[in-house]
Amino acid sequence: MPGKRIFASAQDVEAAFYEALEKADIELMMTIWSEDDEIVCVHPGGSRLVGYPPIREAWRRIFDTGRRLQVHLAPVTAVSTPFSTVHSLIVQVSISGTSDVSAPLAVTNVYVRGAMGWRMVVHHASAVPPEALSTETAPKILH
Amino acid sequence: MPGKRIFASAQDVEAAFYEALEKADIELMMTIWSEDDEIVCVHPGGSRLVGYPPIREAWRRIFDTGRRLQVHLAPVTAVSTPFSTVHSLIVQVSISGTSDVSAPLAVTNVYVRGAMGWRMVVHHASAVPPEALSTETAPKILH
Repeated sequence: MPGKRIFASAQDVEAAFYEALEKADIELMMTIWSEDDEIVCVHPGGSRLVGYPPIREAWRRIFDTGRRLQVHLAPVTAVSTPFSTVHSLIVQVSISGTSDVSAPLAVTNVYVRGAMGWRMVVHHASAVPPEALSTETAPKILH
Repeated sequence: MPGKRIFASAQDVEAAFYEALEKADIELMMTIWSEDDEIVCVHPGGSRLVGYPPIREAWRRIFDTGRRLQVHLAPVTAVSTPFSTVHSLIVQVSISGTSDVSAPLAVTNVYVRGAMGWRMVVHHASAVPPEALSTETAPKILH
């Protein structure tokens, strides 16, 4: 089950999410998710995963490949209400130590504020055409 | 700009969204969107569109093909807060009068409640593997 770490903002959750992705840290990754039964994760080209166990299993398999990923984020658009925030990002993922870069991804991240602070409830990522990047501000390195 | 129609719930907005899609009704389609500058629409395989003018233009082009689409929705998972609701659906689109059926789509729809009632702020659709359907409850026809 998720740990007891409290996130004070959606931005804090998002930073921890991408830190976990880059470090292939499954415990940190699962800390950021809401305990809601209906959390949803869609990886690029993958199925829709609903609930904690399948989402954990999919991240474990990604991290077990041993490839270390580096994430480049283009600036975020956000729509917020008092208890929720939606971020829309353009993301590029590269494999550390190689010149391999993924197609740009459109990402929708949804965060909800509950008794345990802010947590992620939806991560939806899908490949978009390469020209998507040219219409966005140049990506920046996360860390 | 969006019309003055008021939607009393996220479900009402979603029903109008898919009704507009099936009827190729651009005015109804644009009525359901929030007036927020940062509304986001990602069509399957398409770029991320931000803001009312590019979102309208993309729907206009889809509707102008003259193909009438029929939408089959699998049951929705939802996470709600007082001013927002996120729906995650598996959707199949077919072309009326043909046996053409799209790959299943994972869809994230985000709705926000504002002074003008409920409106859509994010529609993110992407193709998922056909086996995604077998892990879901059988799809049902919307209308």
